[in-house]
Amino acid sequence: MHSSAGSTVWYIPDGYIPEDSSGKLASHESVCVLNSGSMDAMAEFTIFFEDRDPIDGIYVTVPGRRTRHIRTSSLTNGTETIPVGIPYAIQVTSSLPVIVQYSRLDSTQAENALMSTMAFPINQT
Amino acid sequence: MHSSAGSTVWYIPDGYIPEDSSGKLASHESVCVLNSGSMDAMAEFTIFFEDRDPIDGIYVTVPGRRTRHIRTSSLTNGTETIPVGIPYAIQVTSSLPVIVQYSRLDSTQAENALMSTMAFPINQT
Amino acid sequence: MHSSAGSTVWYIPDGYIPEDSSGKLASHESVCVLNSGSMDAMAEFTIFFEDRDPIDGIYVTVPGRRTRHIRTSSLTNGTETIPVGIPYAIQVTSSLPVIVQYSRLDSTQAENALMSTMAFPINQT
Amino acid sequence: MHSSAGSTVWYIPDGYIPEDSSGKLASHESVCVLNSGSMDAMAEFTIFFEDRDPIDGIYVTVPGRRTRHIRTSSLTNGTETIPVGIPYAIQVTSSLPVIVQYSRLDSTQAENALMSTMAFPINQT
Repeated sequence: MHSSAGSTVWYIPDGYIPEDSSGKLASHESVCVLNSGSMDAMAEFTIFFEDRDPIDGIYVTVPGRRTRHIRTSSLTNGTETIPVGIPYAIQVTSSLPVIVQYSRLDSTQAENALMSTMAFPINQT
Repeated sequence: MHSSAGSTVWYIPDGYIPEDSSGKLASHESVCVLNSGSMDAMAEFTIFFEDRDPIDGIYVTVPGRRTRHIRTSSLTNGTETIPVGIPYAIQVTSSLPVIVQYSRLDSTQAENALMSTMAFPINQT
Repeated sequence: MHSSAGSTVWYIPDGYIPEDSSGKLASHESVCVLNSGSMDAMAEFTIFFEDRDPIDGIYVTVPGRRTRHIRTSSLTNGTETIPVGIPYAIQVTSSLPVIVQYSRLDSTQAENALMSTMAFPINQT
Repeated sequence: MHSSAGSTVWYIPDGYIPEDSSGKLASHESVCVLNSGSMDAMAEFTIFFEDRDPIDGIYVTVPGRRTRHIRTSSLTNGTETIPVGIPYAIQVTSSLPVIVQYSRLDSTQAENALMSTMAFPINQT
């Protein structure tokens, strides 16, 4: 039985899905969640914008002892998705402690650009 | 009613606005601020240099439940702006806890380069 | 006699070994471990996946007052290695506190893309 | 009178000065130090390697209310400098709390690659 580690609330202020892709790889963002514990975790995503109310009610299960690398373009609450080319921010809350890292690949130009950072944790355990 | 999260003081030592742009995207930096709480936050920016006194008195409002992705080239206290091509550093102090991430896109060459990091928090709540 | 610093458990959710390389440099990831203390540290790596059980039992010695920049493609428990082109995550546990940073060079296209972040620490001392 | 903020000990495990440069910008690393307080801080750099004893006794002054963006290739204790093309790690200790960020520009290929992360703090105040 492995215990969970990390935090239950994480923030990523700089969300942005590039509009354009070229070269061999598509522009995308990944929210990478690691559940080091034995029990499954339920993560809820809330999406913040500059000029409208947040989208919430987006749920992703991260099984115990597994990682999920989640493309932000795949996130949906059933009716809404994250628009491309718009600045936004991400809150992840989890039923159990997890670790969250954010990465973006931008292939607007043929050659790629990469960035990555740990999300910012609240309620660390 | 959502409570605020994060810190009220954040630092970014490596500020730099590239002088040149080429290709499809312009070189720029973004200071991305997320206010997860319901009340509006007032953020003050102080800009530090290598060889002169800081610039302060730069204010930006971040409404409740909103994010702002602020281009550093847009920051002004009414009389001064951040010069391009000069190493500098950023302090953000906020009236309420927020989360701050810093990103830079460098398009000096036609292909893009990206970097990002969470700002460094003081007074975390 | 120098004392050790950092943490004994670190996490990196976004592991990925690019399949392709071009240009002058090969695509790779590095897990960079710094042991600031005088005594040797033994680090164990556990590799998490999206759809299978973790690989563990991968050991690397980091001598006292030394750094090791470890290519993830070199990690093995004697029978298994990390497959390329597959999302995964990394746990590093160490017998003594160390500091861990993760970096990736992607040369899928001829020009390079770089990303780096500190790993996420648990049990900081 | 402004008080200092940050930490007095910082670590950067992934140090590396690229051997090659091309295009408009030279490959380099910067250790960016911000001294938000009114009093001058004295920073000492210690350089760790994979297969030899550390170099220490490298001192840099960071004046009060100033930032210094220090190229690692400029660091010297009077007799030694950091060799290019060799994996190494950095410890920064400061007489007063400061904030430290690390960035690398790699122009091995004509197009640039960038990475950045906050250094890892010990003894935060």
